[in-house]
Order: sequence, then structure tokens, then C-alpha cells
Amino acid sequence: MSASAPSHHFIYTDWNLIETQFDPEQINHKGTVFTIGNGYLGTRGSFEEGYPRALSATLINGVYDDVPVVYTELANCPDWLPLTVRIDGENFRLDRGEVLSYQRQLDLQRGILSRKVRWRSPKGKTLDLYFERFASLADQNVLALRCQVTPLDFNGSIAVSASLNGYPENQGYNHWEEIERGDGDGTIWLHVRTRSSHVELGMAAKLLLSGTEGTFQVTSVPGYPTVETTFAVAAGQTATLDKIVTVFTSREAQTPAHVAQEKLAQLSSYSQLQSAHIGAWEEVWQHSDILIEGDTKAQLAVRYNLFQLLVSAPRHDNRVSIPAKTLSGFGYRGHIFWDTEIFILPFFIYTQPKIARNLLTYRYHTLNGARRKASYYGYKGAMFAWESAETGDEVTPRWALPNQPYAEDIRIWCRDREIHISSDIAYAIWYYWQATNDDEWMRDCGAEIILDGAVFWNSRIEWNPKQQRYEIREVIGADEYHEHVSNNAFTNRMVQWHLEKAIAVYQWLCDRFPERAAELETKLGLTAKLRDRWEDMAANLWIPYDPTTGLIEQYEGFFNLEDIDLAHYEPRTRSMQEILGIEGANKRQVLKQPDVLMLLYLMRQSEEFPYNKEILQKNWDYYAPRTDITYGSSLGPAIHGILASDLGQSDEAYKLFLQAAMVDLEDVRGNAADGIHAASAGGVWQAVVFGFGGFKLTQEGPVATPHLPSHWQRLKFKIHWRSTWYDFDLRAEASEQKAEGKIQGVIFDLDGVLTDTAEFHYRAWQRLADEEGIPFDRQANEALRGISRRESLMRIVGDRNYTEAQLEEMMERKNRYYVESIQDITPNNLLPGARELLDELRAAGIKIAIGSASKNARMVIEHLGIADKVDAIADGYSVQLSKPAPDLFLHAAELLGLEPSQCVVVEDAESGIEAGLAAGMLTVGLGPAERVGKAHVVLPSLEGVTWEDLQSQLFGTAAGSRY
Amino acid sequence: MSASAPSHHFIYTDWNLIETQFDPEQINHKGTVFTIGNGYLGTRGSFEEGYPRALSATLINGVYDDVPVVYTELANCPDWLPLTVRIDGENFRLDRGEVLSYQRQLDLQRGILSRKVRWRSPKGKTLDLYFERFASLADQNVLALRCQVTPLDFNGSIAVSASLNGYPENQGYNHWEEIERGDGDGTIWLHVRTRSSHVELGMAAKLLLSGTEGTFQVTSVPGYPTVETTFAVAAGQTATLDKIVTVFTSREAQTPAHVAQEKLAQLSSYSQLQSAHIGAWEEVWQHSDILIEGDTKAQLAVRYNLFQLLVSAPRHDNRVSIPAKTLSGFGYRGHIFWDTEIFILPFFIYTQPKIARNLLTYRYHTLNGARRKASYYGYKGAMFAWESAETGDEVTPRWALPNQPYAEDIRIWCRDREIHISSDIAYAIWYYWQATNDDEWMRDCGAEIILDGAVFWNSRIEWNPKQQRYEIREVIGADEYHEHVSNNAFTNRMVQWHLEKAIAVYQWLCDRFPERAAELETKLGLTAKLRDRWEDMAANLWIPYDPTTGLIEQYEGFFNLEDIDLAHYEPRTRSMQEILGIEGANKRQVLKQPDVLMLLYLMRQSEEFPYNKEILQKNWDYYAPRTDITYGSSLGPAIHGILASDLGQSDEAYKLFLQAAMVDLEDVRGNAADGIHAASAGGVWQAVVFGFGGFKLTQEGPVATPHLPSHWQRLKFKIHWRSTWYDFDLRAEASEQKAEGKIQGVIFDLDGVLTDTAEFHYRAWQRLADEEGIPFDRQANEALRGISRRESLMRIVGDRNYTEAQLEEMMERKNRYYVESIQDITPNNLLPGARELLDELRAAGIKIAIGSASKNARMVIEHLGIADKVDAIADGYSVQLSKPAPDLFLHAAELLGLEPSQCVVVEDAESGIEAGLAAGMLTVGLGPAERVGKAHVVLPSLEGVTWEDLQSQLFGTAAGSRY
Repeated sequence: MSASAPSHHFIYTDWNLIETQFDPEQINHKGTVFTIGNGYLGTRGSFEEGYPRALSATLINGVYDDVPVVYTELANCPDWLPLTVRIDGENFRLDRGEVLSYQRQLDLQRGILSRKVRWRSPKGKTLDLYFERFASLADQNVLALRCQVTPLDFNGSIAVSASLNGYPENQGYNHWEEIERGDGDGTIWLHVRTRSSHVELGMAAKLLLSGTEGTFQVTSVPGYPTVETTFAVAAGQTATLDKIVTVFTSREAQTPAHVAQEKLAQLSSYSQLQSAHIGAWEEVWQHSDILIEGDTKAQLAVRYNLFQLLVSAPRHDNRVSIPAKTLSGFGYRGHIFWDTEIFILPFFIYTQPKIARNLLTYRYHTLNGARRKASYYGYKGAMFAWESAETGDEVTPRWALPNQPYAEDIRIWCRDREIHISSDIAYAIWYYWQATNDDEWMRDCGAEIILDGAVFWNSRIEWNPKQQRYEIREVIGADEYHEHVSNNAFTNRMVQWHLEKAIAVYQWLCDRFPERAAELETKLGLTAKLRDRWEDMAANLWIPYDPTTGLIEQYEGFFNLEDIDLAHYEPRTRSMQEILGIEGANKRQVLKQPDVLMLLYLMRQSEEFPYNKEILQKNWDYYAPRTDITYGSSLGPAIHGILASDLGQSDEAYKLFLQAAMVDLEDVRGNAADGIHAASAGGVWQAVVFGFGGFKLTQEGPVATPHLPSHWQRLKFKIHWRSTWYDFDLRAEASEQKAEGKIQGVIFDLDGVLTDTAEFHYRAWQRLADEEGIPFDRQANEALRGISRRESLMRIVGDRNYTEAQLEEMMERKNRYYVESIQDITPNNLLPGARELLDELRAAGIKIAIGSASKNARMVIEHLGIADKVDAIADGYSVQLSKPAPDLFLHAAELLGLEPSQCVVVEDAESGIEAGLAAGMLTVGLGPAERVGKAHVVLPSLEGVTWEDLQSQLFGTAAGSRY
Repeated sequence: MSASAPSHHFIYTDWNLIETQFDPEQINHKGTVFTIGNGYLGTRGSFEEGYPRALSATLINGVYDDVPVVYTELANCPDWLPLTVRIDGENFRLDRGEVLSYQRQLDLQRGILSRKVRWRSPKGKTLDLYFERFASLADQNVLALRCQVTPLDFNGSIAVSASLNGYPENQGYNHWEEIERGDGDGTIWLHVRTRSSHVELGMAAKLLLSGTEGTFQVTSVPGYPTVETTFAVAAGQTATLDKIVTVFTSREAQTPAHVAQEKLAQLSSYSQLQSAHIGAWEEVWQHSDILIEGDTKAQLAVRYNLFQLLVSAPRHDNRVSIPAKTLSGFGYRGHIFWDTEIFILPFFIYTQPKIARNLLTYRYHTLNGARRKASYYGYKGAMFAWESAETGDEVTPRWALPNQPYAEDIRIWCRDREIHISSDIAYAIWYYWQATNDDEWMRDCGAEIILDGAVFWNSRIEWNPKQQRYEIREVIGADEYHEHVSNNAFTNRMVQWHLEKAIAVYQWLCDRFPERAAELETKLGLTAKLRDRWEDMAANLWIPYDPTTGLIEQYEGFFNLEDIDLAHYEPRTRSMQEILGIEGANKRQVLKQPDVLMLLYLMRQSEEFPYNKEILQKNWDYYAPRTDITYGSSLGPAIHGILASDLGQSDEAYKLFLQAAMVDLEDVRGNAADGIHAASAGGVWQAVVFGFGGFKLTQEGPVATPHLPSHWQRLKFKIHWRSTWYDFDLRAEASEQKAEGKIQGVIFDLDGVLTDTAEFHYRAWQRLADEEGIPFDRQANEALRGISRRESLMRIVGDRNYTEAQLEEMMERKNRYYVESIQDITPNNLLPGARELLDELRAAGIKIAIGSASKNARMVIEHLGIADKVDAIADGYSVQLSKPAPDLFLHAAELLGLEPSQCVVVEDAESGIEAGLAAGMLTVGLGPAERVGKAHVVLPSLEGVTWEDLQSQLFGTAAGSRY
């Protein structure tokens, strides 16, 4: 894991994920990353204007439809995004014309995705475009999208059309049939129905124009209702288009198309909808946020993972759960796995318990499916589906069918054998109950699930008379590289635990709710004989554990398998199963994901057998090196990270945590396009709270014994425990001293920080403009601050006609004039305070670098007479990507031989501060707060600033000032 | 099989299939039936305006794309049909507003599908709409569609929009990604690509308006380019819209979108394109037509089946074949079976040998696929795929996967075991060669297929040392109800035959083309040893035949299976496999389709072992009653029909022939929606030519020994044999006498035939109009001829406002006046000649019926004084469907106790003649030819007409006058 991943063009700030470049190759990875949602639906981060092969998707939880081989999938719903901007016959598209600037930003705090683009059309018209969208968290059936268009160098007519696309597809398949479509009074609507499951969906939209006047027209081809407005705008004038959308399905409304239209008619303005939405997010974050200081990347990544869980969690529906890839992609077809109960649920149990209850109630509603599955396999009780959808019937595909005439079909055995899911659900119910004391729900729902699961186990467990023990044969444990095993320690211990809890729950029911106990006795056949058998089984179910070595054997015979040294296969970019083949992995001691260690992790919460530190260490030493943690299951890294924290291996823990936290942001496994790794996201919360935070529940209540990564100054989170909120605000010991000592270098921007060449630029532009006979003055020059040479020229020439060759020549000429003029720079041009600070830094042994985008930086430094005070220069020749990308500063740190965290950046431009933050450096902003307010410290200039002051401001106030 | 199937609302004429009613329930059956095409593509008979759940499809042969489970399928291509007509905000749709009249017609002779509709919009505007379309047979990349709109009761503005629909679907799946779309100068175009196989397709269209002036506008949403024209028309004025479309794929053009646009720009007018198209069809029918006299239904059905084969046969491409469901539906996914070689090919060999060569060359191009398959299964040579697509690799699905969580997956064994396909192909090649003497092709392509097939057999056949014979074990024969059998007589004999022919072909090659022989020896490894083994195998391959009984056993052990009496299961509507289950059928002596009988049929062509009449009879008696001929395979009936002909069972033969011929027209098996049964269609040609025509190839050349169905007067067809065309014009012996004697009844229309009540109607309308103050006169009355009471009234009131209740009252009033007035009818109102003819008929013992739509018919007859001359009256109360439906006349025949073929209809209206023809009756038309020209005999009136004259005209001129 590199500290930054510039190839993804991301800048990470505390609350904002910023993309700085459009890369068509990454369109589907980014489509996942920029998913928004509100628990009712998720919408992938596709662009309003649409691109070929972009996987656009809006998935509404619970809207399943039939599909071959995998039985059922979440149906991609009609797309509410399409909005095209047409200027002079040309559609705005990033892959046509010229993108002069580009920034896409996901604001996690407010749940808003926005995009700022300056674009020049192939015919040469330049516009600023601003898009933003949100799925209202305040009103789940409301979606909104805003587009602002500002022509820069022309006056003219622009047409904007907004559509509903009734041809959504699941990898080519359109689940919907149009029932009707229509329009009226500037609104359009669509009424469709899934082909097999017959879920109806109604979607309605209106388009509102402000900032100018326009004409409206509705066109209607099958499945693609469209409303178009045409309006005139002048250069500099901004037109605002608001597309407001409502969507309902027959899952929550009898006449969804009708209700969608009615709702649309009643909605207030975009701004009001947005305010309500932002308010709802504020409330959510009050409970679910985690604050990290000292590690912007980790801060952003953690919030990002929590955000993606929050946007996929059902808030008003207890008949759905969170699919393995949330509502953000087609991977696993929207099916629900143990991922929810074991990996995701703790976050909700401890920060949004109502959502946790919804998620568990889904399992209650699918009990009959679990019973049908048990019955199909010849068992009793509730045997939960490994992959579950609407009904709870098993929907794991039986086959992986390679689409080649002579390839072998691969039987998938999870549906038959990965049976620990039933106990995983029991486990989650138990801890939900422990955390919430929600006795009512336990009585009505939870108990029945746990008890009927125990009924299943009674029919599934076998007695081995020879060994005089109970056994569970022919299973798949947590580790899916071994497909046909017996007495898997993970499964057997979880089942044993399940039986123990079933007995306890039954006893509790009898004590507290005897009527319900009697009801379930009858319904589930809970005889005294059966309960005795549970006790007997719990007592005599075999766990393959050797007390002499302290090692738990993953399953009976695992230690007899061929051993393997994974290091021999490095470097690699594929899973060990892909390398060895299914049979090859089956035969070796190689794990896809933690199995014994997973068990130890789960038992850790209450320190139940076989959990203790010594056994953990022994088993860690054995299993961790044999686990395919990089390309096996994405469920592994977070869990390994927590255990590494427990074992005091902080660096390893942090590395594993980052591997989990960046899995989607940086597409660590190459499959982020399929959707968010929800279990990994849940694991990230556990890694931070249980791992780094050392959070534990004791008899006395929740406590935390933190072991923060060395560079974290603070970790703050909330926990809900038995009706009370607990605030944990954990600070690194002696953080100030440590932090101060850390700074080894200062990187100065040049222009506006050490000197001011604005005057020289102005004179050069003025001379050029005069020669060309173009009006230009100081006021016009003001608008060029922070703007590139080409862009400055474009603004000056406006809509005058120049060929590209002429433009090139003019840029060259202006630069010549500028370079000529800076020959006149002298040490007197140093800004006040600069020389003093540089001298002081050198005296203190702090290294100094220049980080300037100017290609003339070196010459200017010479003329300023400070060349001997500077250790390194990163200039316009050093890197490809300009600020706000972190590249220039990272390059400067490298030249100084320092880590980014050892550097301070001094900057006077917003993009420079962003670049410093993205590089993971401390930042000092010179100038007004509206320009450089994102910096750690804001100062008017360097005048009178000492190194001591600076340090004190940088570290003394870090705990409070930024939030 | 009933003689007519009015539930399908079809009228059959010699060349036209006419549908008289729109039934949304039959939309997909009819979608198949009204498929048009040109060998390059097929377009299902969907409507231009589109309906929910209609399976629209345009399939281009060879454009395959990947799909799960079944590997590959013909990708449904962008739909070129969409054309909507909008009047006053309302779209023309048959399921909205009121359909006043409806007729859809497939003109087989000219390859044109047309539709005439009179429609009243929900807002009450009445229009005539006429649509027609064709896929040019003269220029395969050109498609054309015409729409004519005539407002009847309003002047106003009409908008017509024409689109290309880039969202075609194969059962929900869209194989295409849009690359680009565009428009220019009134044209629109689309450039798309298949997702996996990356076949590109370009489609361009223009919309031309004539008959009025209009404005044009192009709109463009993704995947649905649309051109719209808005124009004004006055009542009675006709606007004509021509939509001309071009389509190319990357299979035949490097830049298909570009080529499509260029081609479109060069095209001439709709009329000129249509003339070229009709000319091309004329040429095709000159060789491929079959003329049948005496059986209009059979005539139409035979031509219909041949038409569907002709529109799916590749004319300019030898890398494709004819899929089992042609290019008309999604059944079998466009895969190619033995259906082509064994069932379809004879029609082409003997009437379109160039097409036959294309079809066989497809197998040559897929030889490497067949070799890959052999190699996969561990054999040598060419093992052809049971289901074949682009490459010839095996694409039979391995599994039938029921989409229910706990249903069992069904293994499909045909890919592994139905290996007779390789010899079926050899068989077809041999007979193509025999018929054409195409030595060049045999040298270059055919020989290699036959020889490499024999190489395969050498590796597949096993020697049984115990029995001292060669055997072929573990196969599926022609009968697919038995999936795992050994020494299947059909397979073994076909393989034996194949080896015999391989030896002969090899010898011929050595003699005639020694260089090619040497080349193939090397390439295929044809050693002398191998050739010896072929001889040995051919001599000693076991055929389970018992000369003492004359019975061939279907396979080793078949006679030991449990026997079955199919009669016990009647009546049924499902196959025996569905009733018994797969295993149940496997265990019993029940056949899906002929197997031993199929073998006897195939060996019949050259009377090779084991074919002779006696053996045929014995095996027929055994196997025919055990064959599920109704709901087993659709491949069975035609073959059984031919054998029944051979055995002199004419009635049975005709019944079986009709079962095959009507399989799609009347949806006999309930699965016509999946596409045309191509093998059955090919079987129909064989049943007519080989069965009824008794056509055979002898050493002296082709001969025919006909056994026509008893009511056929003539059968005429052409055969191409070794560069010469042979005309067969077979007439039933003594057909005149037989036919004359047959007529037992005459059905007279009343009004215009026996009397003329037009004057009475006119007076009633006049009186009503006068009372209402509406202008009306004799001229206006003329326009009401043949129009219903309600429609007449609507025309009279025009756009005056009346409530439905008022209209009802007015109709009632007019009828009252009319009924009052016909009280004045006397015998003097009989038309000249009527009474004389009636008397003569009675004297001759001919029964007389009245077939009149009037509800007053009975009263009029009373007043005319002919009630005693009439045996039966079918009037306006008798049936639901009015003329041109045959119902009224069929009812009259029934009242007379006669078969339709025993009746003559006398009519003065076009719709009446059509009704008579549809009823399968002889028809006499009174009036001008432009009105009643379709009748068998046309006369000015009954004046002076005698029964003798009539008979002489009806039968004396039948042989020539009608064609």
C-alpha cells in the first residue's frame, strides 16, 4: 500500500473525497466509489450525460426479479440521472472537446455528490458546468439533481433535456416491461413492472429552470420520457436546472406511478429538499461518526466506509437486509450473506440500533424460506440460506458455468455445506440483544430464529459412537478454499455456542414470557427431550483442539494436508485458488480467509472458549502466514488487523486496516466495479473501534483500552449501550511533543509566499494584449489569479478567432516577456518575513524546499538571492499532475528525503492547501480564510512569523480547531 | 384438425393469408406467423406502433453473441419498425379507441405484409390507416415500410414519428452496446456492437412524406433516434409516409454505419424498391412454387411453409445455415440442427440448388469446430455439433436449469450422444451431389466433410469380440425419448451408409481429382489401413433386424421395454414425456418421433437396405401407434404422412400432412410464438412432392407416381435435376365428374343477389337525415355500400355531436323505417333470373340456403315469396363474426347437413366472396371483376343463368383460369 495512490486521481480531505481527473478507463471503479443512496435505494456514480459501457445503476432494496442460474437478483431500476446539455448542436461530453478543469467531489458529511467542469466544446465554446445530486435521506422516495451552466466566452442558446431511462440493465438484461408512460405540465413519468416478480415501479420527474427564461417541450419515445428546455444565456450568466424525481414501488405503494406523480406535485424547492436532506445526515453522523486526527487519509477512508454502509441500510423496511455489495453494484446479484450479521451489524448495533433491528427482522421474515431449505435437505427447523434474497430460500447458484463449449462446469457447494450461517445469525441476534436489551423483539422474533436454528442443528449433528462424541460432517467452514470437510472448528464451536444460547434463551422465555415460550414449544416442537439433547450436544460436540500445543485444527485432518509457503508465490496479483486450482487449494494448508482466527475473533467479545491471548498468539503464528490475505477473501484483512492490534503488532494492524479501508477507494483487489465490499466496510468500523480503540463490553459496561497507530493523535467515537450513549475521545499520549519533533522540513510555495510575481505576469499580459489590440487592464488581470497560462490567454482573447498555432505563439510570447521582466527581480522582491523565517529554519536544522508550479522557479530563486537557503526545488518540470494533486509536494518531500508526515507546506492558494492535505502534510495558509481556510493554520502573511510560533499554532490547537 | 380454425381469425386464399381481427392474446403467435424476410434477415410480424409484451425481433443470420447456459444465440437486432401516428395528442393503438375494421394480409407471392385498419380515436376521430412492409429480396440490406393515413371525419394535424429502436431484446437481454448515433438531413442512424462477439451493426433510416406538406424534426435520446413529421390533412385526403431503412453488419461491411448511411442516400423511391422486390419474388416462385387445385387451405398452407423457408435461406452467405426456428423467433436460440440437412434441404436441392450449396458450405466452414468437438471427446476426425452456431463448436446446453431453488437441474445428453448428425450431413451432401452433379463443390468441400466424418466413425465404433461385430454404444437415436441406448438401428445404419459413401467418394476423388485425394489423404490421415477398416466396419456393423419378423428393433433391448397403449392417454394436450417424466418415457416403448420409420424413409430415396414395402408395412404397424405424433416432435407428422402415402393410407396421409402444414398457422402445438417450425416446413414440401406427388429419382431420371388426396384436382411443381428443370403437372383422374357430382348445395346471399333492398335502406336513411336536419342524398348514400348500420350512421352525422344514447336511438329509428318499408316488398322485387335458378336447383335435388348478414333476412324472404324454396337461413342472428369471416357460410352448410366442399356460394360483395373462399367453398361472384374478381366464376347477374352453365363454368375452366 503506497501512502497515496495518485493513479486514482483522488484527494482525501476529512470529509470530502475529491477526484481531479476524468479517466474513462476507471469509469466503473469510480461508478462504485461515487455511489450515493438513502437506505431505500442506491445510485451508482455514473454521469448525467452517459458514457458507453458505463455500468449505471439505481438499485432499490427488495426489488428482486428472476434470472437464470442465480435464481434472483436486484433489478436495476429505471435511471433517473440522464440530463444532457446541448450547445450549438453539440452535447456536453467529457470525451469530446476539451476538459479545461475537472473536479468531482463526494461530500460525506452532507451526502452530496457534485462535479465542477470547465469544458470547451469541439466548436470552441467554453462553459462552466456544475452538477450536484442527492438521494434524500429525509424522504426516501425523493431524488434531486442540479445542473448549473455558465457560458464563458459566448452568448447563446442552450438546450437541456432531462429523461427517465426505462432501459436499465443488469449486465445486458432489462428486468422491466413498460406498463405506461406519460407527461403533463412539464413533468414526465414512467410506470414499469418486473418481468417475473411483477414488482411495479413508478417514477416521475420535473425540470425547473431558474436564472433565465426558457421554453419547455416534452418528447416521448417508448421507455424514455424526456423533458427539454431551451433558453438563452449571456457570457457569465448562470442558468440553473433542477431535476426533481420521485420513485415508488408496489412494495410500499399500491399505485406507485400515481403516487409518484402526486408526490412530485407536492414537493418544495430544490434548496428546501436539500436542507432537509443535510439535516438528516447531520443527525446520522452525530451518532455514527468516527473522528481521527493525525491521518487525513484514514479519516476520509473510515468515514467513506461508514457512509457506504449508511446509504445501503434499510431505515424504513424490515423485510430487506444489506446485500454483500450493498446497493452499489451487480456483484453477488444483491444476495445477502453472513457478511451482514458478522461483519456489518456491529456498526449498526452500537450506533444505529433501529437499523440493526430492521436487518435482523429480515431474517425473521425469511424463516419460512430457511424451513423450506431444511426440509429440502431432509432436516428439521431453520437452515438459513447461504445466499438469501426476498424469501429466504437458498439462492446460491449450483453452478459456475464457463461459457465455452468444452469447459467444465463447476459445482458450487456453499448452498449445501456452508451451514455455519444459521449460527452466525444467532450470534448477531444475541449481541444485538445484549447491546440493546430489546426484550420485546427478542420475544417476538429473535428467540424463534435462535430456537428453530437449534432445532435444525439437532437434526444435522451426528453422533459418532466409536469416538463417543457429536460431530458435524461434510461442511464448508469460514475458509472457502476447503470445500468438503468434517468437524470444522469454526462451525462446531459456533454451533456449540448456538446451542448454549438456545438453552439460555428458552429459559429466559419461560421465565419472562411463559405464554410465548408455550407457543414456540408447540410451533417448533421444543420437547423436554429435545432440550436435553441440546445440552448433551453442546457438552459433547467435538472441537478439534490440542491443549498441548494450544493449536486448534481448522478441521479434522487439516494438519495432514500438504503445507505451503505463500512467500514463494510473491509477487502475485491473483488468489491462491486461481494459482493452484480448486483441487490444488483443497489439498494444501492455504486459507482463503481466517477460519480458526475468525472463531477466536468472534469469541473474543466475551472471551469464551477457546479465547485467550496465549492461544491467540499460537494460532495467529500458525494460521496468519497461511492465509491468502491479499487476494483471498476481502473479509480477511480487517479481522486480521484487529487480532494484530490485540497482539500488539501495531504496524501490521495498520497495514491490514488500510488494506480493508482502501479496498474500494483504491480498488485494491481490482473488482471494485462490482460494488462496495460491504463486509470489509463493516470490518473497518470494527478494526477502528474494537482494534485501535480497544473497545470492549465488560460487566461494568463499555470500556476502551486504545492502541492507536503511532501517527494518530486522536480517535473519537460514540457507542450506544443499553439505552445510553457513551462518548470515547481517545488521544495519543504526549502527542504534542511527538508531533512537534516530527517536523523535519518546510515546503514553500514561491509566488505569493516568498515573493510576488503577479505584477510581472500582469505586465507581460498587458504588453501582449496591447500588441494584439485586445482591451486589458488591472481589473481584468485580477480574474486570472491561480489560472494556467493557456486558460488566462483564453479569457483574454474571448471569442476572437485565433488558430491553435496563433495561440501557441501568443503563450510563448507572453512567457518571453515575463522571463525578460523577471530578470529585474532582486532580493528586494522577497516578501516581508520570508528571509528571517528561512534563516531561522536553517539554524534549527529544518530542511527547506520550494514547491512551485512555475517553470521559472529556479530562475526566480536565483534572482531573489535565496538559492543557498533552499535544499530542494520541485517546479513545473517535476511532475505531471498539478495542484490540487499532491504530487508536487510529495516529490519535494522525496527530494528532501523526508516522509510526507514530516513536512509542513506553506501556501497562499486554495489548490495548494488541498494539495498539501492530500499529500498528508501539515499546512499553513497565507491569506484570507475563504481562500486558505482548509489549512491547519491560517496566517495573513509570513511577516513576523517565527518557527516557534508556527509550531505552537500547528500543534497547540489541533485538538479542537478543525472540527 | 378442424377444417377451419376461426379462432385464429384467418382467411386462406391461394396466395394470401388474411387475418380479420386483432387479438392481443395471440400477438406472439401471430408475430411468428407474419414474419417476413429475405434470407439475410427475418423480421417478426410485430406492429409498427408496438405493444407491451410483444416479442418484436429482427434477426440477421450469423449475428451471434454470447449468452449463459446455451453459449450463443442470434442477437435480436435493433428494431426498424417503430412508427407512431399521433392525432390530437392520441397515439394510434389497436387497444385504445375503437377498431371499426381490421385486416392484416401476408401476400406470399410478392413478399409483402400489409394491414388495413379503420380506427376511431378515444376522442372520436376516425381514420383509415394502411401499412405495408417488405424486406427487399432484390437488395438484402434494404427494408421498407409504408404508412398511409386518411382522416375520415375531420381536418387536422397529424404527427408521424419513425424510430430505430436500439433496445431490442432476447427475452429481456439486449446484446447491443451503442457506439454512436446521429442524424442529418431528415435521416437518422445507429451504430451498435454486440457485447461479447463484437459484431458491429449500422442501421440508417429516412422518412418521406407525400400527399401533403409537413415539417420534419429529429429527436435523439440514447439508443432511440427518431424522425418526426407533422402535417395537415383534410377529411378524405391521404398522406403517405415511406420509411426506408438500410442495415449492414461488420460481417459484410467494414464500416457498417457508414455504409448504411451511404446506401440510404443512394436509394430510389419506395415504389421502385418495391418493384425490384416483387420482381425478385416472381423469379423465386417460378422455380419453387407448388400449385394445388381443389384445396385452398392446403394451397395456402404449402405456399406459406415454402415462403417461410425462402425468407430464412441465405442467398449470399455460405457461412450460415437455417436455424431450427428460422429467423422468426427465439426458440433454440438460432442454433442449427439436423433439421436443415434432413428436413429442409431437399426443397432447396431440387428448387434452389445455389441456396442448398450455401447451406452445405456452412458445414464445410464449421469443420474445425467439429474437429475440436471430436478432440474434446477423445475421438478423431469431425464430430459435428448437435447444435451448431457460428464456429461449429458444440452449443447444445449441458443443462436445463429450472429457476427454482430446490428443483433438480436436468442434464441434457444430446451434445454427448446424439451423434447421428455427422452422418445426416454426409447424407445431405451425397444427395445434393447426386441431384446437381456439382463435382467442383464435392471436390473442394463435400468430400472432406464425408471423409473426416468417416475418420470420426472409425474412432467411435467399437468391436465386440464376443459377438464378432461392430457396435455403436451409448447414443441417442432419432427418437429422443430414449437417452442412453446402444446399437440404435437408425444411427448404425446411417453410419454404415456413411462409410459406404466415404469409400465411394474416396474412390471417385482418386479417379477424378488425384491431387485433391492426395491432399486429403495427408490432411485427414487416410491410410490404406484405415480405408480397409471402413470396409470392414461397413460390412460388420450390427443392425438389430430380425428377418423372421421383418421388424427392426429401434435399439438393442427396445422390445424388452414396458409396452404402452397411447390411446389410453387420450385426449391429451401434452407430450408423453411430460406425462410420464423423463425416466418414465425412457422405460417404455413410446417414441417422440420416428426412428426406425425415419430410417426407412431416408433409405427409401434409393431403396437401400432395409427398405421395401413389406418391411415398411410391418414396421409401420409396430412403431406408428407407439409414436407421440401429436405432441412429441414436430419433425414427425410430415414423415409419417409420406410413409402413409406410400402405404396407400390416403386419409391418414392427408391428416398428417395438415398437422405439419398448420403447425405454425394454427399453432397446433401451442409453441408457434417461439418461431417457425422449419423442419416441419421442409417436411411439408417433402410430403407434397415425395408423398402425394410420388416423386422419385430413378436411373432414367425423375418420375412421379401421384397419390393425391381425394379432393385435390391438380398438383403442379418443378424439380431441378442435373441442370434440367422438370415440370410435374399432376391432375386427379376424372376430376371434372367427381367435382361436379360433389356439389350438393348453393348458398345465396340475399341483398344484391336475390333482391335489392338498397333502395329501401336509402329511403330509411333519407328520412332519418331529413328529420335530423342533416344534408343527405343518393350520392352520399352510395358511399354506404357494404357498410354496417353503425358505421353508416357515423358517416351521415359526421362531426356533429350526438351522445351514444342518441346514436342508438337513431339506428333503431332508421331500422324501424326500413322494416316498415320492406313490408312493401313483393315477389316482384326478386331480381331477374333468381326464381328460375331456384326452381331448377330444387328440381335437381340441390339444397338451397340463404347466407345473409341482415337481421331482417327472414322477413324479406317471406315477402319475396321464396320461403318454400329455401332449405335453410343463416342470417344476422346466426354467428358472431361477419363476412369476410367464413362463419356464416359454414353455418349455412351445417344447416344443410353438407361439407363446405359440397357447397357453392353466390355473392355480390367482395367480403362475401372472401368469406366463401375462406369457408373452402366454390364461389360465384355477381358484379364487376374489381369487386368480385376473386370468385371462381364471375357473372354480371343471375339473369339467364342455368345450373348446367354454372357447373360447366365452375369446373370446366378451373385448371387454367385462376393462375
